[in-house]
Amino acid sequence: MIIPVILSGGSGTRLWPLSRPERPKQFLALTGERTMLQMTLARTSDRQRFAPPLVIAASSHADEIKRQIEGEIESVVLEPVARNTAPAIALAALLAAPDAPLLVMPSDHLIRDQEAFLDAVALGLPLAEQGWLVTFGIVPHRAETGYGYIRRGEAISSGVHRVERFVEKPDATTAEALLASGDHYWNGGIFLFRADAYLAALGTHAPEVLHAARRAMANRTGSERNIYPDAEAFAAAPFISIDYAVMEKAGSVAVVPVSMGWSDIGSWDALYEVGRPDADGNILAGNAVAANSRGCLIRSDGPTIVTVGVEDLIVVASGDSVLILPRGQSQRVKEAVDALRASSAGEAQP
Amino acid sequence: MIIPVILSGGSGTRLWPLSRPERPKQFLALTGERTMLQMTLARTSDRQRFAPPLVIAASSHADEIKRQIEGEIESVVLEPVARNTAPAIALAALLAAPDAPLLVMPSDHLIRDQEAFLDAVALGLPLAEQGWLVTFGIVPHRAETGYGYIRRGEAISSGVHRVERFVEKPDATTAEALLASGDHYWNGGIFLFRADAYLAALGTHAPEVLHAARRAMANRTGSERNIYPDAEAFAAAPFISIDYAVMEKAGSVAVVPVSMGWSDIGSWDALYEVGRPDADGNILAGNAVAANSRGCLIRSDGPTIVTVGVEDLIVVASGDSVLILPRGQSQRVKEAVDALRASSAGEAQP
Repeated sequence: MIIPVILSGGSGTRLWPLSRPERPKQFLALTGERTMLQMTLARTSDRQRFAPPLVIAASSHADEIKRQIEGEIESVVLEPVARNTAPAIALAALLAAPDAPLLVMPSDHLIRDQEAFLDAVALGLPLAEQGWLVTFGIVPHRAETGYGYIRRGEAISSGVHRVERFVEKPDATTAEALLASGDHYWNGGIFLFRADAYLAALGTHAPEVLHAARRAMANRTGSERNIYPDAEAFAAAPFISIDYAVMEKAGSVAVVPVSMGWSDIGSWDALYEVGRPDADGNILAGNAVAANSRGCLIRSDGPTIVTVGVEDLIVVASGDSVLILPRGQSQRVKEAVDALRASSAGEAQP
Repeated sequence: MIIPVILSGGSGTRLWPLSRPERPKQFLALTGERTMLQMTLARTSDRQRFAPPLVIAASSHADEIKRQIEGEIESVVLEPVARNTAPAIALAALLAAPDAPLLVMPSDHLIRDQEAFLDAVALGLPLAEQGWLVTFGIVPHRAETGYGYIRRGEAISSGVHRVERFVEKPDATTAEALLASGDHYWNGGIFLFRADAYLAALGTHAPEVLHAARRAMANRTGSERNIYPDAEAFAAAPFISIDYAVMEKAGSVAVVPVSMGWSDIGSWDALYEVGRPDADGNILAGNAVAANSRGCLIRSDGPTIVTVGVEDLIVVASGDSVLILPRGQSQRVKEAVDALRASSAGEAQP
């Protein structure tokens, strides 16, 4: 039985003002009624295939996790500090039976084609059971510079390849070449491996991560359901991703290429792209009214936004802030946050 | 001694969402710390030249008037219903001594050049004392289609002309011709005449207005300070402007041309035009932050508005609404109000 391991450590600010440190993307209902975390949990709710999940989250989000979790859960591991994915996954691996396959998933990604997702997992499972570290490579459809890439090597089994190499986030020219190559995939941060295979790879390539995670779990507090690793021990772990710590170094790493309507919804533009625009090309959510306006993303959980005669704007109102920027430039949200910090409008600071 | 008569009957929605029926333009601080009404009162605060003013306002605004009035006031006449300017001014004229010169002014216009204003009043005063109905014609600087025009005729005295005719709000082509003519002025709705001259002209050209106003004042209630004309009697007056009722028909009508930095601030674009843009061409008020944005008017008395990389937008947040439209198109605010009414976001209806 596969154990889903759901990573809820993100604290993204790229969807400001909706996402905030106390309410990161996984806790938001971006594409419908349910939050990204709830949709992620639902993805592995078939108890014929999947055991109840382990959720790894920040202890500061304990209450929000409690509010949002629906259905059966094995445990929630509440990290005292953020140490990135390699240590977080180590905590989960130490809780699981050594031969249990772990399906590691970010809690804030969209996967619209559930069947394709399950098929890819099924393709990867036999390899994972044999001890491979399996990744899932998203078939790219644009020359994205915001993701790392995975180059496939020789086929191992039907639909599964050895990983030739991992590629850092490329510049625009390189991204075009990677897209054109046909043998590079986006690294979506989804993994499948046995708990013992991951821990063994950690022991070889990042022993300080394994050591800190072991000590943190040996001295854990809390209950079976809510697990608090020892804060001092866990803080000693380096801040490092699973990619850097293990995947790029380990030997038996496989990739399952998959097209499954995946998006990390890493920006307001990305949210527009996965949405269903109305006849005027607008995507409206909450208190939003677009009069003679086209191509806009308008969301508000607060004041009523009314636009007249504008085109291709992103307008997001949340809490005490309203963000307005041109669509296609939503990576510039950081400028908004910086300008707000620099301004005297101190009360509304993110 | 000139008696200022300040008309506070406006209920404009052109500055929605800041202006609302319960808080029309004259009660807003649009250009600085003080409201348009307060600035209008200050304009005639020199007690060497002006008697304490008469304010004519809607009875529904009695509390707001009370809050805003600073300095000495003769009386506030609280209209039970709106009947436009001709009946409102009749109420004031009936309160004043027959030979008192009345300086009639809207309460929601901007006049930046106070000296030019006082000079123009001084030029008109001798004519008014002789029984002329004196208007003030704003020297136009653009082919505005939103105002009526006044064509000057022969000179009566230095800087004062007989009015040749009043011109209705023109279409764009006509407005260009009027601007080019050099002898047409905007009708800014400011008048100077003896109380008895106005009442006599009313008796000749609009006797039903005079009759209703006389009955309303004969049966008034309230105090010396707060005067409530009889509601039923006043409601019998026709809804008619001083221009239609009197000025366009009377014989001895004069115009004093004047350039005095006048604006009726009849739109968000007009407010931008009278403002002082920062180095990026932005005019910001309240909780507004513009990052790498140009040519924007951004005001908020509520949420913090943060723009990034946008140009020539008008953004106004007030109460529970945020308006966004292109600068130069602020006459389209009506589309916003209509769209909001039509939408299901019913709570935020204007």
